[in-house]
Amino acid sequence: MQTVAIVGTGLIGASFGLALRNAGFQGAIVGVSSDGAIAAAVGAGAVDRGAPLAEAVADADLVFLSQTIGRILDTIRHLDAHLKTGALVTDAGSTKCEIVDHARQSIKRAQFLGGHPMAGKETRGAASADAGLFRNRTWVLTPDEPSELETPAARELRGWLDRIGARVTVLDCDEHDRIVAQTSHLPQLASTALGAVLADAKHLQVSGSGLTDMTRLALSSYDLWRDILATNSDHIDRAIAAYIQELEHIRENLRTRQLQEEFRLGAMTATRLRERK
Amino acid sequence: MQTVAIVGTGLIGASFGLALRNAGFQGAIVGVSSDGAIAAAVGAGAVDRGAPLAEAVADADLVFLSQTIGRILDTIRHLDAHLKTGALVTDAGSTKCEIVDHARQSIKRAQFLGGHPMAGKETRGAASADAGLFRNRTWVLTPDEPSELETPAARELRGWLDRIGARVTVLDCDEHDRIVAQTSHLPQLASTALGAVLADAKHLQVSGSGLTDMTRLALSSYDLWRDILATNSDHIDRAIAAYIQELEHIRENLRTRQLQEEFRLGAMTATRLRERK
Repeated sequence: MQTVAIVGTGLIGASFGLALRNAGFQGAIVGVSSDGAIAAAVGAGAVDRGAPLAEAVADADLVFLSQTIGRILDTIRHLDAHLKTGALVTDAGSTKCEIVDHARQSIKRAQFLGGHPMAGKETRGAASADAGLFRNRTWVLTPDEPSELETPAARELRGWLDRIGARVTVLDCDEHDRIVAQTSHLPQLASTALGAVLADAKHLQVSGSGLTDMTRLALSSYDLWRDILATNSDHIDRAIAAYIQELEHIRENLRTRQLQEEFRLGAMTATRLRERK
Repeated sequence: MQTVAIVGTGLIGASFGLALRNAGFQGAIVGVSSDGAIAAAVGAGAVDRGAPLAEAVADADLVFLSQTIGRILDTIRHLDAHLKTGALVTDAGSTKCEIVDHARQSIKRAQFLGGHPMAGKETRGAASADAGLFRNRTWVLTPDEPSELETPAARELRGWLDRIGARVTVLDCDEHDRIVAQTSHLPQLASTALGAVLADAKHLQVSGSGLTDMTRLALSSYDLWRDILATNSDHIDRAIAAYIQELEHIRENLRTRQLQEEFRLGAMTATRLRERK
């Protein structure tokens, strides 16, 4: 792997560039983005230079699509003619089946392997880039077939993911989308709903740090979430329905010992999440 | 104010003792609790010594009830005969009307003024006590009449609350209970429900820091929450109902621009909570 093209040099793309450099990658890293975003990414040391898409991917052994989902889908439609034979295209989209389906139809000259690094921040852009953003974080890969993980290019990508500290999990794209509806999209909407339902509340100062924590995700930008919600709405619908059912169960048992069981289950999940660190 | 009795020397009680000392209080601080809890509180420097309730409150100018709500109610029933004339009794219970109602009936020889410091941690006990726990945190006082805040003992309490860095907010007890149902009890149950609904989930590692944040409150102990939920269930029921309604609204609009408005409202609340710091 001599040359990497990073298409979309926001927080994730720029952090990936920085992480590669930090892990010892010595090849060229070319960014594709607006002039301002490229300047920020070059300034952060995340890419060497910017280039138009066709030029950037022409020599790239790895093409990393780290745009919003809608833009990734658009890029995929225009990418194939410019790719180097034997290259690997991967992405960082937060939902996978729609992207994988589009790539299967559009990308013929190179291999596509869907990806999703489970890392982020409230702040956006290359200025917030962090070489350690993916360390100890799950990075999902979604091959259609296990053999897709064994091509030379895929093995090389996995080597670099190991070196930047990411923990690779392999899932079917639909399994991925179902899981993240529960573990990522539901928490986001639970936080947004909590913030929204309190929008008219007076005396917000009458609260502890718990409410502040519970509304951190509510700071997230709708611009990032619009595509996620639109491309995974069936799984998200079911996840919200299950959450509402659980809330109704709690509501009906505010004065009964049944709530002890719900607290036990809730604490068990919270503990499992903290044990993996 | 020469002598303070702290009834219940867990996290809140012991932190209050430490905070008083740190702010320059030079009188006696006597704790009422089990032998083990007293030993921990003495070891932390939060109280000078332990004593039985009747002995501890006999000389106390301020009696601070920092037990669970059920135990505060029980203490209030047995307290009056032992109180010093002119003393002030206050508490740290997370719901106020039931406590204030009981105190109005039972405490005759001294003044009762309900209180609720909006501070906490996931960890319990005097070993976690922190002199800065109340700094920049809201401390609600719930007098029946504004004049209750102007007695010499109440003025002295407010002086010490200022000195330990707490921000006093005065509310009617029912207003307090309605607000905390939204700002404290709802976030707790939203977190518990999220943890509980994911209790059977495989692949919990496929998540970002958002889910970890959103399940921090789910680590809370049911032992602390049982009484809160039982003594504020009407307000909590309404708060959960409004939250479910908001979630249904979001669920129906996963693919529409209406969600942009919900994200805007959610972020507005999250921003307001962060601006007060």
